Amino acid sequence: MVVVLKKEASLQEITAVREFIESKDIKIHVSQGEYHTVFGLLGEVNEETKEQISSFPAVEHIVPIMKSYKLVSLDFRPEPTTIRINGHVIGNGSFTVIAGPCAVESREQILETAQCVKESGAHILRGGVFKPRTSPYSFQGLGLQGLHYLAEAKEKTGLPIITEILAPEEAVMVAPYVDILQIGARNMQNFALLKALGAMRKPVLLKRGMMATIEEFLLAAEYLLKAGNDQVILCERGIRNFEPSMRNTLDLSAVAFIKQLTHLPIIVDPSHATGKRELVAPLAKAALAVGADGVMIEIHKEPEKAKSDGPQSLHFPTFKKLMEELHRLYPALRPNNP
Amino acid sequence: MVVVLKKEASLQEITAVREFIESKDIKIHVSQGEYHTVFGLLGEVNEETKEQISSFPAVEHIVPIMKSYKLVSLDFRPEPTTIRINGHVIGNGSFTVIAGPCAVESREQILETAQCVKESGAHILRGGVFKPRTSPYSFQGLGLQGLHYLAEAKEKTGLPIITEILAPEEAVMVAPYVDILQIGARNMQNFALLKALGAMRKPVLLKRGMMATIEEFLLAAEYLLKAGNDQVILCERGIRNFEPSMRNTLDLSAVAFIKQLTHLPIIVDPSHATGKRELVAPLAKAALAVGADGVMIEIHKEPEKAKSDGPQSLHFPTFKKLMEELHRLYPALRPNNP
Amino acid sequence: MVVVLKKEASLQEITAVREFIESKDIKIHVSQGEYHTVFGLLGEVNEETKEQISSFPAVEHIVPIMKSYKLVSLDFRPEPTTIRINGHVIGNGSFTVIAGPCAVESREQILETAQCVKESGAHILRGGVFKPRTSPYSFQGLGLQGLHYLAEAKEKTGLPIITEILAPEEAVMVAPYVDILQIGARNMQNFALLKALGAMRKPVLLKRGMMATIEEFLLAAEYLLKAGNDQVILCERGIRNFEPSMRNTLDLSAVAFIKQLTHLPIIVDPSHATGKRELVAPLAKAALAVGADGVMIEIHKEPEKAKSDGPQSLHFPTFKKLMEELHRLYPALRPNNP
Amino acid sequence: MVVVLKKEASLQEITAVREFIESKDIKIHVSQGEYHTVFGLLGEVNEETKEQISSFPAVEHIVPIMKSYKLVSLDFRPEPTTIRINGHVIGNGSFTVIAGPCAVESREQILETAQCVKESGAHILRGGVFKPRTSPYSFQGLGLQGLHYLAEAKEKTGLPIITEILAPEEAVMVAPYVDILQIGARNMQNFALLKALGAMRKPVLLKRGMMATIEEFLLAAEYLLKAGNDQVILCERGIRNFEPSMRNTLDLSAVAFIKQLTHLPIIVDPSHATGKRELVAPLAKAALAVGADGVMIEIHKEPEKAKSDGPQSLHFPTFKKLMEELHRLYPALRPNNP
Repeated sequence: MVVVLKKEASLQEITAVREFIESKDIKIHVSQGEYHTVFGLLGEVNEETKEQISSFPAVEHIVPIMKSYKLVSLDFRPEPTTIRINGHVIGNGSFTVIAGPCAVESREQILETAQCVKESGAHILRGGVFKPRTSPYSFQGLGLQGLHYLAEAKEKTGLPIITEILAPEEAVMVAPYVDILQIGARNMQNFALLKALGAMRKPVLLKRGMMATIEEFLLAAEYLLKAGNDQVILCERGIRNFEPSMRNTLDLSAVAFIKQLTHLPIIVDPSHATGKRELVAPLAKAALAVGADGVMIEIHKEPEKAKSDGPQSLHFPTFKKLMEELHRLYPALRPNNP
Repeated sequence: MVVVLKKEASLQEITAVREFIESKDIKIHVSQGEYHTVFGLLGEVNEETKEQISSFPAVEHIVPIMKSYKLVSLDFRPEPTTIRINGHVIGNGSFTVIAGPCAVESREQILETAQCVKESGAHILRGGVFKPRTSPYSFQGLGLQGLHYLAEAKEKTGLPIITEILAPEEAVMVAPYVDILQIGARNMQNFALLKALGAMRKPVLLKRGMMATIEEFLLAAEYLLKAGNDQVILCERGIRNFEPSMRNTLDLSAVAFIKQLTHLPIIVDPSHATGKRELVAPLAKAALAVGADGVMIEIHKEPEKAKSDGPQSLHFPTFKKLMEELHRLYPALRPNNP
Repeated sequence: MVVVLKKEASLQEITAVREFIESKDIKIHVSQGEYHTVFGLLGEVNEETKEQISSFPAVEHIVPIMKSYKLVSLDFRPEPTTIRINGHVIGNGSFTVIAGPCAVESREQILETAQCVKESGAHILRGGVFKPRTSPYSFQGLGLQGLHYLAEAKEKTGLPIITEILAPEEAVMVAPYVDILQIGARNMQNFALLKALGAMRKPVLLKRGMMATIEEFLLAAEYLLKAGNDQVILCERGIRNFEPSMRNTLDLSAVAFIKQLTHLPIIVDPSHATGKRELVAPLAKAALAVGADGVMIEIHKEPEKAKSDGPQSLHFPTFKKLMEELHRLYPALRPNNP
Repeated sequence: MVVVLKKEASLQEITAVREFIESKDIKIHVSQGEYHTVFGLLGEVNEETKEQISSFPAVEHIVPIMKSYKLVSLDFRPEPTTIRINGHVIGNGSFTVIAGPCAVESREQILETAQCVKESGAHILRGGVFKPRTSPYSFQGLGLQGLHYLAEAKEKTGLPIITEILAPEEAVMVAPYVDILQIGARNMQNFALLKALGAMRKPVLLKRGMMATIEEFLLAAEYLLKAGNDQVILCERGIRNFEPSMRNTLDLSAVAFIKQLTHLPIIVDPSHATGKRELVAPLAKAALAVGADGVMIEIHKEPEKAKSDGPQSLHFPTFKKLMEELHRLYPALRPNNP
């Protein structure tokens, strides 16, 4: 870490900082510039000490040099993490397609959709049963009933299933039925939830908060790994911006960058990112091209009757066409993969 | 609500939309423009129906006209909500000062701070015991032990206390000890938490998410009121932006605007908003000038030894000086208040 | 256009709005809802009248229905615009690669770079001679001398050239030497410059401002077309965001969306968008996958000696490798193109 | 400056960086940490060298320590800059009110408005004659004719006048008539314009770009001072954000912060920041409380007939009432000023 001291700091003030740092058994290199004094701290500095140092009146700012996350970093584990579900492997060059409705609405709906997902060659079925909704007047999901329908769809098709949970107590209830637990964007920094899922032995899909920095995103994943769960899939789903015509801005640059920072797989959700079904296909192909480990796509038999997210849901035939395209493109874009 | 149909929509497609709306017993006024057809829907349309309508291929977009929140709106209750705690009234022109450390760190620290808060004339003592931290390696709070110290400080000074909770199960544990429960910015859309606190009879301070629109903020409050708790205090604490030199951007325009939308009191947190102690005083005064119902300010006896948020914590003497200034300014800025 | 009137507006106030609109010879459909009155305006409403209507005290807000741009829209011209330069066609499914240094630094540098661009199979040579720099103390470009070097590179290689201009008077000076004039992101709403280039008969590459909405971007292009110049290439180069680790956020969703709104070609600049050379290749491939009409890429023989933008410039061998990849991928991603 | 080297950099690569830096006659302190090597560079490093250093493959990132601006900084000139216009002094604790219409629309309109500005006790008259408009179909201003009306208003009332200019050639034409030249938010980084106005001897009001960092804002002002013009007034007018209900977010935290960085006066424009007339008064008072040197406010006799910005323009009586409030508050908020 580097500590930049204020130009106008007195010798006495600077000495106070120095003594404090040394009291923590951290070695210091002093660079006495023409205007500023700079301390180079050797070795690791913990978060608490960092904050304390930056609170001294003499300190202008501090510059962390080491990454704040560890277990999720490529430095810690240089080999890509893979997650094996039902024989399907997520990560390390494969391209996983998760598809399904925003919400489970009825038994018939989820069974029909599961059939379509199966036929199209996609790998995992999604469906929300506890829905996080901005308005308390919006459809909040079928709850446990929906979970049973989802389980039936799994049984009938053999597809693994994923669903979002909103609170630690739901996790316990939901885990026996599903293959992957999802933490939604609004809960990316729900630390109680992160700690609870970290303590379980079930893969977790962690969505990036709509205004989370890459570092915050990786630190949220770090909570899971630190608690003992390293079966984590990241998911970029669009960040909030000033543009009024799309729901969010899909941040494919972040995907390319995150691939250079972590061993965890990262997939892309073009449906929530844009809120527009006609943009899903081009962005799914771009996700494949940029190096993502998969996509999550919302589909619906009759989007105009969907209880949520209809405008961004693909009709079944459009989804099947997209699956064919992705299959066709895969060998060209991942020439080194089987 | 207004439904704008696509220019290229066929008569058949338009009829499908029309029939769907009428099947919901909603009356339609049709405006047939030169290029576009527009439906004006009379009466209320629920959230689910809104999404369904916007999913029809013929629909370009919909324009909600009614506000999506009800119970929190000035239309619903034109008189300002006031919250009475220990004889002190929050809201309706008063200016409440909440102060204390970011985190309770020790018995001695919170007792000394409480004494300072009391002497300065501020109204409520804050102190975190369960801390939401971006990194799992940062100080996570003293937990229950901290709560007991906080309760002792209350007993000794008579000051009401407020602390943040991170999960529904903490609420039950914490509520008997404190006067106000705080929902932090990262949990503004933690719907499980909102529902749990909505079911309690304890005032709630709800912080605006750093990425939340004003409508989302008010809808989060709506969750609380809909569940039966109308003792809600809003808190603006800065929104995320592109500026690297301050932690967040304090959005005083939002405060002025929210005062025109809701009967709930709203206070301002200039400490978290900026992350810089030297900006706290001017922004606290600006909060008073813009019409906020109070401020929440972080203070610490020795910020350089604080376990968190030291750089933004005021030293005790600076805080006392600010309190004097606010007292002096109050009659000039609120001439119509006692 | 739809005009939503305030709930509390008096009949007299509403009548004032109505009479004003009718005085402009615009027909009105009135929807009298339970709470709100809404006017549907038939036919076009000009910008000035729009603002005037929205200034009436009785008006809550207005909702434009027609797009604010015309000449750039697909409604106006459903066929893709193509721009022919030196036999090379930009737009309509082709994929154009523009490459070169951020700035022309010396005769030798630009001649060597041009040679590399030529050999790699890229189509157009870029090089800045008037540089827009955030700091007045940064290198401001070689000016006219640089332009002569650029012209020599064109003569030697046959490559068309593009350079940025900062002011109308530069355009006149530069136009005879170059094939495309570039308007930089910071000048996207420099209306004097847009009007000047609109009056010329020379292709223009218009970069999206880092804070510009899609509508503002298209309206800036509309200035060019309205002034008579329809040889316009759009360029997405990243929007500003809260993320500190990358220079900007490349907005590929916007590219997919803009393709559905306008007939103008749009290319992508992954170098400026990210500021990191290791992200250029994956994002260039994603640009091809998402449907962009090309990319603009910064290259340098020795980036560590570049006078600007070194960290994002590709070394020559890396660029050649990327060109080979793009060539290989093109038939898979554009199966319907020659 | 501090240079952080990559963990995986080879000794040879690190040596290359070191030799390059030393070749520029810059001294280096080396901190050899457990994981990273860090170079502390003593003395100033110019912008070009900074970029070159950060382009070396071995360099992870660089950390500038010195501020990038000089002439505008309080370090350079610790006394506040004041600007004397017609006997009125801007800066150093005074509070200047600039008021007038968005655009000069007619002789009668500007004369009447000037009269209102004069009577209310405000100090300077504003009025646009060359208007920067997002759409080419919006009213573009009266041009020279408007300038003559403005000059007549000045003659009749004795009020100094300010108007925006869009291009260097307009500056020469406009300067003889007006007291302050305004650079609009969209032109904050129009470097040709900054250089042109920097070369003149006429006060300049420089508006912050809607997505400009504080450093970029101050560097734009630095262009003016470096070119020889130190009569510069900064103006915060709202930054762009994700909130759809207000035009921009007024950034009063930036105002408080900028007061600690520069000697230049800074005023606030609450009209453009919010786009809503009912928010102008509370934010103008907050501007006074936060320490701004003034406000710029849009007013109109009949906002509903204004050719632009009607929704945010105050009616004359509301403006006069605000002026009375500001007068009443001034002694309480600036107790140390005359």
